[in-house]
Amino acid sequence: MVEALDRLVAVLSKLPAIGRRSAERIAFRLVCRQTGLIDDLVTALQDVKTHVRTCSQCGVVTTADRDPCKFCSDPGRNGSVLYVVEDPSDVYAIERAGGVSGRYHVLMGKISPMSGEGPWDLQLRSLVDRIDREACKEVILALNTDVESDATAGFIRELLKDRDVKVTRLARGLPVGSGIAYTDPVTLNRAISGRQDV
Amino acid sequence: MVEALDRLVAVLSKLPAIGRRSAERIAFRLVCRQTGLIDDLVTALQDVKTHVRTCSQCGVVTTADRDPCKFCSDPGRNGSVLYVVEDPSDVYAIERAGGVSGRYHVLMGKISPMSGEGPWDLQLRSLVDRIDREACKEVILALNTDVESDATAGFIRELLKDRDVKVTRLARGLPVGSGIAYTDPVTLNRAISGRQDV
Repeated sequence: MVEALDRLVAVLSKLPAIGRRSAERIAFRLVCRQTGLIDDLVTALQDVKTHVRTCSQCGVVTTADRDPCKFCSDPGRNGSVLYVVEDPSDVYAIERAGGVSGRYHVLMGKISPMSGEGPWDLQLRSLVDRIDREACKEVILALNTDVESDATAGFIRELLKDRDVKVTRLARGLPVGSGIAYTDPVTLNRAISGRQDV
Repeated sequence: MVEALDRLVAVLSKLPAIGRRSAERIAFRLVCRQTGLIDDLVTALQDVKTHVRTCSQCGVVTTADRDPCKFCSDPGRNGSVLYVVEDPSDVYAIERAGGVSGRYHVLMGKISPMSGEGPWDLQLRSLVDRIDREACKEVILALNTDVESDATAGFIRELLKDRDVKVTRLARGLPVGSGIAYTDPVTLNRAISGRQDV
């Protein structure tokens, strides 16, 4: 194959959700049918590099001219409540759900021995610093619900156990609109043990 | 969401095999965890734009300083046999299979009313020109085996019916290493009707 094309395939394969075969399809498409898209992609990537940052305080995606981000710099938000999420994209899902008045802290991952990520690869030191500095009252762990996220939640609970801060985690139970007959046993079990007063 | 990030997601979504959700994952990953990859990607894209071309004769991927491509300019290849393929990437699969001494002609797609591609969006005029100019004896349709490729094969056969050129298509039958019990009925039916002397 042509060398420059090989290199593009190699770089594309490093992106998430793109395997070797998809990378080849994309590279061939760019060369043979959508050559105009190369310029669009280069411009978009350079713009992102120039203008987009992660907030130096919380890790949320923001613009270069707005650091701290709009959440950290909003005086209307309650600084004593901190939502801890795994990835910056989780913040948008939580904002869409509405009703949030706290601030965010992005871990940039989770404890994952399989992919070589230990607890100290995460933004945990800055989390502890913020809790101390901002007199935080409640840390809400808005983490995913897999085994690695459970381990991460457990680690953070231990890490904060000597501090005067409440640590909670999002409720696990039946998704709204679902039926009991179609719910997997683990979720149903969680929903029963976490049953709520009516 | 941040505007420049939105634009990157929009451009990425136009690539094959990347949906909206994957585009978001890739964009966030580039901003938050793999910022170095932005430069690698920009360089690789610019290199491809500068150095990679499709051959002006056959449509195969080649370098800017080598047009016609190595297949078209190889005097050892038999110019009277032409392999007609849908995409440039198909050429590499055929080369890997070995034993090919002809040249190639890339259609750049297939007849596909669903995606708005008619026969004259394909490289058919240049195919006819080449057959006339290069005194071609056999056109081997190395197309895929779906309904749209079948329609494309039928169209090309009609198109060439008044010319003194043999039109063949790759054999359809049992893949090597497969078992009859596991073969789908359509393939088995093709294998029976196309049975060969032992």
